[in-house]
Parts: sequence; structure tokens; C-alpha cells
Amino acid sequence: MRVVIIGGDAAGMSAATRIRAGRPDAEVVVFEAGRFTSYSACGIPYVVGGTVSGGVEALVARSPEEHRARGIDVRLHHEALGFDPVGGTVEVLDHHTGDTQRLDYDHLMIATGGAPIRPDLPGIDLPFIHGVQSLEHAQTLLALSEEGCRRIVVVGGGYIGLEMAEAYIERGCTATVVERKEQLLGLLDVDLGARVTAAMRDHGIDVRTSTTVDAFEPGAVMTSDGPIAADLVVLGIGTRPRSDLARDAGLELSTNDAVRVDVHQATSAEHVWSAGDCADALHGVTGRRVHIPLGTYANKHGRVAGINIAGGEARSAPVLGTAITKLCALEVALTGASGPEAAEAGLDAVSVTIDATTSAGYMPDAAPMTVRLCAERGTGRLLGVQIVGGPGAAKRVDVVATAITAGMTVADVVDVDLAYAPPFSGVWDPVAVAAREALKVV
Amino acid sequence: MRVVIIGGDAAGMSAATRIRAGRPDAEVVVFEAGRFTSYSACGIPYVVGGTVSGGVEALVARSPEEHRARGIDVRLHHEALGFDPVGGTVEVLDHHTGDTQRLDYDHLMIATGGAPIRPDLPGIDLPFIHGVQSLEHAQTLLALSEEGCRRIVVVGGGYIGLEMAEAYIERGCTATVVERKEQLLGLLDVDLGARVTAAMRDHGIDVRTSTTVDAFEPGAVMTSDGPIAADLVVLGIGTRPRSDLARDAGLELSTNDAVRVDVHQATSAEHVWSAGDCADALHGVTGRRVHIPLGTYANKHGRVAGINIAGGEARSAPVLGTAITKLCALEVALTGASGPEAAEAGLDAVSVTIDATTSAGYMPDAAPMTVRLCAERGTGRLLGVQIVGGPGAAKRVDVVATAITAGMTVADVVDVDLAYAPPFSGVWDPVAVAAREALKVV
Repeated sequence: MRVVIIGGDAAGMSAATRIRAGRPDAEVVVFEAGRFTSYSACGIPYVVGGTVSGGVEALVARSPEEHRARGIDVRLHHEALGFDPVGGTVEVLDHHTGDTQRLDYDHLMIATGGAPIRPDLPGIDLPFIHGVQSLEHAQTLLALSEEGCRRIVVVGGGYIGLEMAEAYIERGCTATVVERKEQLLGLLDVDLGARVTAAMRDHGIDVRTSTTVDAFEPGAVMTSDGPIAADLVVLGIGTRPRSDLARDAGLELSTNDAVRVDVHQATSAEHVWSAGDCADALHGVTGRRVHIPLGTYANKHGRVAGINIAGGEARSAPVLGTAITKLCALEVALTGASGPEAAEAGLDAVSVTIDATTSAGYMPDAAPMTVRLCAERGTGRLLGVQIVGGPGAAKRVDVVATAITAGMTVADVVDVDLAYAPPFSGVWDPVAVAAREALKVV
Repeated sequence: MRVVIIGGDAAGMSAATRIRAGRPDAEVVVFEAGRFTSYSACGIPYVVGGTVSGGVEALVARSPEEHRARGIDVRLHHEALGFDPVGGTVEVLDHHTGDTQRLDYDHLMIATGGAPIRPDLPGIDLPFIHGVQSLEHAQTLLALSEEGCRRIVVVGGGYIGLEMAEAYIERGCTATVVERKEQLLGLLDVDLGARVTAAMRDHGIDVRTSTTVDAFEPGAVMTSDGPIAADLVVLGIGTRPRSDLARDAGLELSTNDAVRVDVHQATSAEHVWSAGDCADALHGVTGRRVHIPLGTYANKHGRVAGINIAGGEARSAPVLGTAITKLCALEVALTGASGPEAAEAGLDAVSVTIDATTSAGYMPDAAPMTVRLCAERGTGRLLGVQIVGGPGAAKRVDVVATAITAGMTVADVVDVDLAYAPPFSGVWDPVAVAAREALKVV
């Protein structure tokens, strides 16, 4: 059996590893267009900002050599040009030799990941505009910083863009964030997003919300708020799935043009599988097909695909969109559905908001934190949470993600025996306080 | 309706508050033997160590005056001498006037809390030996520190004793911990307890395990390891329930002589309720009646008692014994049952142990953490966890507490959409890694 995997990052290599484990006889060929495998793109801001030393190599969890040592045939600088799901062949270009070859497969895994969204604006192809998706991007960004780029403009107020803005401040650069909407982190409710804006500004980042980018010119970003001088532009608008190969082969696409997969990570074509930033997923609260490009899903769903390719049986759980980030002095996390998202999905949702502290109120390091819990009216079923606060606040999102997965109600959460000691929490954990408040209104 | 509450700390005042809210017409009388209400005894080490300034008053969440302003008749320095559950009367001594009075009640709440266990050893009544249970204790300990007690000996290696040892080191004292067993924190498995010992020693605390105390003499603790000079002895052996009143009135007692209560916090006597350190509870994993004196239970179960006394309907959830502490450089937490506890309860349990890091491995502040997960063989049902590690490790216990409450299996936990970003976790959260390992063996 030969398995061909297109893409050597989290989803592809998680699958490869599982296939190796489950079917030691299988030939596993991985075509990777770049030169890295199994890396943490989420770590790029920390390398660029200097928190992590050792360059981009520090973000590599397992190198091509290590994978090869485990019997996985990793071929770098190989780009898949197309595949034929009926004939079971894939066509690949070797960028080093310029040769193309056609290879038969028994199973094909599409793990092509995502690409930074590039807005269709004048000047978008200018060489000072860069995305943050791959280690190759990271190398370029690092090199440019070292060459003296000092004025950074981030276009888009999503997680990675904001993390990059903070990283450049750490490097001693100036950083401006231009966001079309009135708030940063569009997934958050507006008032909570405003706290992120405030925290970024307190940190010296020039945040321009409700500002559109009209064009790029050499050395400047032209916005509705006037031109902003820039040595380097970072695209932080979002990620689109790299699903062109799948589309060209006639596979069914889904939300955001992500490759549609089922619970086994099978695509609409027989013997073709997909996972990671190029694939869609089922949302556990709204029941919708979603495209949420997160490293956790790439790892988990890649693993599921690999087990199934190897002849095992694994199913992907629905996703909750759990996200977390640290931005300047603030931790932010969310999971499940917000009030508006729940309403849009036809759920009768109520939200409560409570203010608490990260540790017992009398502890000197107790920092404010806000929990906004969303639950279904009537049943009390938990639907989602947003948390914004000081150190220690955000990881509490995991309790709510666990509770949502289990189908718990707010009453159930009030009763959970959550850990308390003064350095960690008030005697009622903020999540339980929020659940108690929600109990009054559901 | 008159409700008499004996004890003005967490359980008693939580009940009082709920009764006030649910039955504004009720007369709520609280007899408190000391002079404080609603305080955090858990915060005492942080006041003694100087982390929290403002003296013991800083630990008061709500003063007697504040309670009175809400219509609760708090009477300080009043000690209940006994009660008659048939006649519905309670006898109380006013320590200020020396008068006793007898009062009728419609409902009686026993919230007398716990007392430090005092081993029956020669010299135990010497004046340099103190417990850590009430703010009065805390005041004494603070005063003695300020008077120049420099050599502290803690007898017993439980949470509060270890926290006190660390607190005295913060004050510039010397601290010795004498523990009869071979490890500190007896609730932890032996090898994990050994890490606590190592962390305490690294912090300059003289830890003597497998050492028995034979006697106390003025200025010294006589141990199997020889005499240890001491200006002050802190009792950290544990807490016994203050259940004498209940026992004398013929109420049913339970494990450790705690007052036996049902899910409504009702005792065996009609119209008599109890909660907090004096009462027992049902353990959610072992199914046993347990006495686990924790502030969280006092608050939660007091609230349940109050709602029921006010004519509402509330039930206490089983407890999991979730505990957390920060000791020197180490965070420690546990919930549910350990392997030995599960076996003792007749459960067929397997444990797995994984080593991970608190944040992504490449982050400079990534600290080691160990997760030991206990699950039922066959079903895979989660039974418990122990976590020991660096900053950010321990609060993850809440995910397991939530999962146990929901009856989740290790397979369910593998699937939970736990939050990941490099400052918070590896891409697979350590709890999920442990669940994945457990899945292989259950």
C-alpha cells in the first residue's frame, strides 16, 4: 500500500506517523513544497519578537531527517500539481530538478494547509508585504527585521497579526495595526474586543480601528485614515484554505472553500483524505460546517485521518473553536458560540457577564478578569464563553470546553469541584460564579 | 421563623445569606465564638509570610457589620454550649458578659468548622504550640513573628503546614517540617510527594520525613531524629471536625466524627442542618462518606443548606476532593481518586503518568509538569488526576474535575477542544496527552 501525503506540517505528519504505526508495511510518501516539517507556525511571533532564541529552527518539532529515520519518505521542495482521484495518481514537481513525475497512490492525504489572505488591493504584490503562515515566511520576517525594518504595519486585527505587532514592539520597532472593523479580534464581543485595543495601545501599539486599507505604495500603506509609513507590512487578515488541488480534482468544498470532510476526515473522493487548515470541520455548538484554521485541529484530525488510512477506526469530535492568546498584559480566550453566533444558529441563548479576579482578591497579584458565559434558555445547556483578563485568566476556557463537550448545563458547572487556593482563584472560581449568574437567567 | 446558625465563617454565613435572600421575613441569628465572620483561613500563610499586607483583616470577605447591614443578627463572642433537637432550643454563652441564654429555633445550622488536630504528646499544651485555623490563630502567629520568633517547627506535612513553612522562610525565619510518613502531602502518590520534598528543601526548608515527634519541651521539639530547637511550633497535622455539640445532642456522626449530612445538608435530626469543616460529604468517585475540610465545600454546602432552610430545593453535588497549592517553585493539584484510593474503593483502576511542559516546549518559561491520570479499566471512565509542575500546571486539574463530574471517559477527554497557544500549552495539552496514554491501557 502506498499513501501519498501532500503537505509536511502538522496534519500531514500526524497522519504519516499514525499510518507508520498502524501499517508498518505501507509506503508513506510526503511531498512538502518547503523545506520544513512538523513545525509550530503559532510560535513565529515569539521567534520574531526574540522571546524564543535559536531562529525558526526552534519551532521544528520533528525534522525531515527524524521522520525519514522512522520510515517516512519525506520529499522536500516537491509541489503537487494535481491529482486524479479516479485513476489514483498524483503529479508532482521537484523544484530542485524541475522534473515532474506521476505517482500512483492507494490513499491520498491533502494536508496543504492555509495561506494568508491577500486583499485584492493596488500594490498588494509589493515586496515589503508578507504573510505569517510558514517557517519560510518567518525566516523572511526575521531577516527583514535584522536588516533594519523599523516601521511595521499589520493589516488586520486577528490573533497572529496582533501577536506580531507585539513581537515587533519587543524588537524595538514601531507597530501600527489597521483593522477595518471597529474592534480587534472580531470573534470577541465588541466591548471585550475594546479591552484588547486598550491593552495594545497601553503597550505602545498604534491601533487604528474602523480604518480601511486602500492601497499599498512603496514605503507606505494608504488608508482611510491617511498614509502610514511602513518598512514592512504583515498580513494578519486571516487564512484561506489551500484547496485548489482539491477543487481542480472535483472534490466537494465547504465553508470558505475548505475541503469538505466527514468524521473520518474522508473527502468526497474515494481514498482521498484531508485535515488541517485546508479542511473544514463540524462545529459542536452551532452544528455548522466551519473553517477554523488552528494547529490543534491539524494535529488531532491528521491523527484521525492517519488511523483510518491505516485501516483503523477513528472519528473526529466536533470542534468548538477554542482559541487563546496572550496580548500584551491581557489574556484572551473563547470557546463555543458567542451570543450572536448562537442566535444566528437558531439557538435561544442568554449571556451573562461577571467580573472577578484571577486569584483571591486580597492577593497582591490578583488581576481583573471578565467571564461572559453563553447558555441556552430553558435547558441551561452551556454554549460558549469568552474570557478576558490578567495572567491565569484564559486557560479557564478549558473547563467550559470540557463542559460543552459533555453537554453540561450551567447548574452542572456550579457544582463542579473546581480547585481553590488563594494564589489560583477566589473560593468560587470565576467560571463557577458566571455559571451561578447564568443559572438565575436561563 | 427563626434560624439559629452556630458559626460565622464560610458555611454559616453562606447559609445566612441565602436564608435572608429566600425568606426576608425570617429572623437569622448567628452565634460566632470569635470576633470575625466570613474570612479566608486559606489566606493565613500569605498574611504571615507578608505577601498580603494589611494584617488578618485583609482576609475578611464580609465583616459582622456588613452582615448586620443585610439583616443578619450576628452575635460575636457567643459560644453555643448545647442544643436540644427535640425541644428546638440552643443554649449560648456570651463570653463578654458571662451570661448564658436559651433560644428557641425553627431551624438550626451547625457550622462550627474544624479545629487543628493536637496530638496527645507530652508538652502539647505548651504555649509555643499553635494551630492555623482561625483568624485568631493568625493574629497570634503574626504577633509572635513580630516579637522575634525565628526558629519555626511545623509538625505535619499537609498543605497548610507546608504553606506556613514557606511563609516563615519569606519572613526570614528558619523552618523545619517534621512528618511522620516518608513523604509530604500524603494525598499524593509517594514519588510525586518526593518532588514536593525536594522543592521545599531547595527553598531552604529543613524537611524531616519518616520522623516522629515524641514530645514538646520549652524551646524544643523532641523527635526520633533528635531535638529540634523551636521558638514556635505550628500544627499542620490536619483538621478534626468540631462536632462535639452535634454528638452531645445525639446526632449521627460519620467519617472522622464529622456530622453526617444528606444531599440537602440535613443532619439526622429534624430541622438541624450542617455544612463546612464540621460536616461530612459524599465522594463522587469512591462513593464513600468523607471528611474533607475545604473552604470551597463550606461555601457551596452552606449555600445549599441556606436555600433548603429557606424552603427552596438545592442538593449538594458529590465532592471530588479537588485541592491545589503552590509550594515554593512547585504547583500541586489533585482531584478524584488516586490509584490506591480507587483500588481501596473496589474500582479496577489503571494509572498513567506523562511528563510535559507548562507551555510550548520552545518557550523560555516552559516548565516541566507531570500528569498522573487514573481511569477505570474497561470503561475508561476518568477517576482522578494528580498534577505536579511549574507555574500554570496545576489549575488544569479543573478540566479533569469537570470531566469526572460529567462521567467522561479518557477517550472523551482526548477529543475535548482544549485551548492551545505557545504561552499556555503544547499543541496537545498535557491533560489530553495523559488521556491519550490512558486510552492505550484502559
